Amino acid sequence: MRTTVGIIGAGPAGLFLSHLLHLHGVDSVVLERRDRDYCERRQRAGVVEHGVAEALRESGLGRRMDREGFRHDGIELRFDGRGHRIDFPDLTGRHVMIWAQTEIVKDLIARRLADGGQILFEAEATAVEGIESKRPCVRFASAEGVEDALECDYVVACDGFHGIGRTSLPEEVVSTYDKVYPFAWLGILADVPPSCDELIYARHERGFALHSMRSETVSRLYLQVPAETDTAEWSDDRIWSELATRFELADGAWKLGTGPITDKSITPMRSFVTEPMRHGRLFLAGDAAHIVPPTGAKGLNLAMRDVMLLAESLRRRYAEGDAAGLDAYSDTALRRVWRAEHFSYWMTSLMHTDPAATPFDNRMQQSYLEHIAACRPAAAQLAENYTGLPEV
Amino acid sequence: MRTTVGIIGAGPAGLFLSHLLHLHGVDSVVLERRDRDYCERRQRAGVVEHGVAEALRESGLGRRMDREGFRHDGIELRFDGRGHRIDFPDLTGRHVMIWAQTEIVKDLIARRLADGGQILFEAEATAVEGIESKRPCVRFASAEGVEDALECDYVVACDGFHGIGRTSLPEEVVSTYDKVYPFAWLGILADVPPSCDELIYARHERGFALHSMRSETVSRLYLQVPAETDTAEWSDDRIWSELATRFELADGAWKLGTGPITDKSITPMRSFVTEPMRHGRLFLAGDAAHIVPPTGAKGLNLAMRDVMLLAESLRRRYAEGDAAGLDAYSDTALRRVWRAEHFSYWMTSLMHTDPAATPFDNRMQQSYLEHIAACRPAAAQLAENYTGLPEV
Repeated sequence: MRTTVGIIGAGPAGLFLSHLLHLHGVDSVVLERRDRDYCERRQRAGVVEHGVAEALRESGLGRRMDREGFRHDGIELRFDGRGHRIDFPDLTGRHVMIWAQTEIVKDLIARRLADGGQILFEAEATAVEGIESKRPCVRFASAEGVEDALECDYVVACDGFHGIGRTSLPEEVVSTYDKVYPFAWLGILADVPPSCDELIYARHERGFALHSMRSETVSRLYLQVPAETDTAEWSDDRIWSELATRFELADGAWKLGTGPITDKSITPMRSFVTEPMRHGRLFLAGDAAHIVPPTGAKGLNLAMRDVMLLAESLRRRYAEGDAAGLDAYSDTALRRVWRAEHFSYWMTSLMHTDPAATPFDNRMQQSYLEHIAACRPAAAQLAENYTGLPEV
Repeated sequence: MRTTVGIIGAGPAGLFLSHLLHLHGVDSVVLERRDRDYCERRQRAGVVEHGVAEALRESGLGRRMDREGFRHDGIELRFDGRGHRIDFPDLTGRHVMIWAQTEIVKDLIARRLADGGQILFEAEATAVEGIESKRPCVRFASAEGVEDALECDYVVACDGFHGIGRTSLPEEVVSTYDKVYPFAWLGILADVPPSCDELIYARHERGFALHSMRSETVSRLYLQVPAETDTAEWSDDRIWSELATRFELADGAWKLGTGPITDKSITPMRSFVTEPMRHGRLFLAGDAAHIVPPTGAKGLNLAMRDVMLLAESLRRRYAEGDAAGLDAYSDTALRRVWRAEHFSYWMTSLMHTDPAATPFDNRMQQSYLEHIAACRPAAAQLAENYTGLPEV
């Protein structure tokens, strides 16, 4: 097989890249080791930055998001039994959309197939070859074990942290940066209307909690738990009771609604960056190159912005014969990546209880949260990062 | 002896309190274990917050500061061989004054003595008694060993971290919070005109450096060194060479002037808070209650603002018979103290190299500094705290 851009991975990054390239008149093929049903069911993030939502709309993928998703103009920081709203439009002129990654993936798959795009499901990439040549090639195997090769001008690996993309870069050119946190998130989906209109990020001495939502009838909630926690330790009753405690307001003026829990999962917390994000004709995008802890909701947005940058760079390459964007991709993307890595680390450190924290450390968190609630620039800094900095 | 307010310590806090009380018609006596000459020579901080400078002016102590000190409208953050200015008036409407603590002390001593104030030098407080009664008393001994007692309505301990004030609170009511940093500052005074118009805070992989000034002919410079460093390890040549390296700009467009070093000292880096700051009729102010690392220049300012609050509370008590300000002193002061503790910790963590830092941690510092240089709210947050938040 031959195409212009070979894309590994049919997550939101790979699919959005393929869609954007199509709009620019550049051919691509997406290889995905899972089946379509698996891709469309995977539960992941749900907060879309202002600029990413705009890009979805501009590329013709905003209609269902604007109809079924929610526009959120703020979040609540809850600590010491009080809530403090961070008003995004007031502080930044921007907002975010609550729209699940899984819905974005559904729309992208449908649209690519309607546009005649090639997504090969159950096609597992096994090797990336010739990335230092002008004719790189991705070897892959079908579900039946039939081996094939995808020849292309460029390979983009959007195949996640455990994919073969990153490991296909020569070891000697790669630097990695890493932090593992001593806690994880226990996430649930529950059939209960959200008890809030906007997300609540709660710091409690027992640990962090997050109240989010998927729809008017489905809530998404998270609890900080120790790393290596097994969901079996957490009965439905224990989860609801712990959530109620961590979200409690001092004046008792808020009640957490409960309902049947339909999904429980553990999200480990990790920061990870690989540099560079390009070697020869292989480019990395999304989780293949970087992982953030989920506090601050940057993972999906970083991935989408990687491929937005890459699509524009490839457009310039083919429409104008100008490869400068491709040559600058790694450096340009990494500036934004490191910004989001810092923000995610910062917000994680601000909101979670660290088992190794001293009483002084706890007071530092407390004082910082009070400052954010009281001081406009401190709140604005959070809002700028949360809604997505336009300049990076 | 008998007075209304007994003050332990003739540093800037104790002296300013005595001066402000005098303006409010409240008598006080200051006990100081050192002699006048020692007090007037002690080299300490040199950055005065906007609001503290205003308070000095309002109390008649601004003339020499405004004539001989410098108004600074910004600082430079220097990292990666580039400089980034933080513009205080643009970001906050405020500025700071460069005016050495030792000069403030000279003016205060002269003014108190001219106003007939009582400062007993070489009078070492040895015990604070009866703080839970209405007649507390400070026992003290003169240089000749003659013992005496100062009876008063209230005792204010401005006697620093090693003074007897804090240890006079009953152990069971006190909580302390503490952090010791794995580095210190080697500070020098040098007879050389400053190589900059504003302070330079430099982060370098070899460690932090700070360029400050005392006058148009005297520079004050600091180097991050390991904790437990002996000044004997640092020859003048080694100091200048290390300073030049840490301040170097990539374009070579800046040169550090050198000159005779007249003083070398080591400042250990510590964060410390004691709660409460008042028990019965004993009040703590300044370093007696809290220590900050010097990054961000909050130590002197916190001490001055403690006694500004206390002077106003005592005025209300005697002029209006209203003790509410005194009763609220500890809680009110501690909100400001924790804010400054966090800022000092934050700026220290941002600018210093930590021997235990991972490559990821170093990138977090780097990304945060770039963010502050690029994002107005991030710079504003620094400027708000540096110039002194008016609301706390």
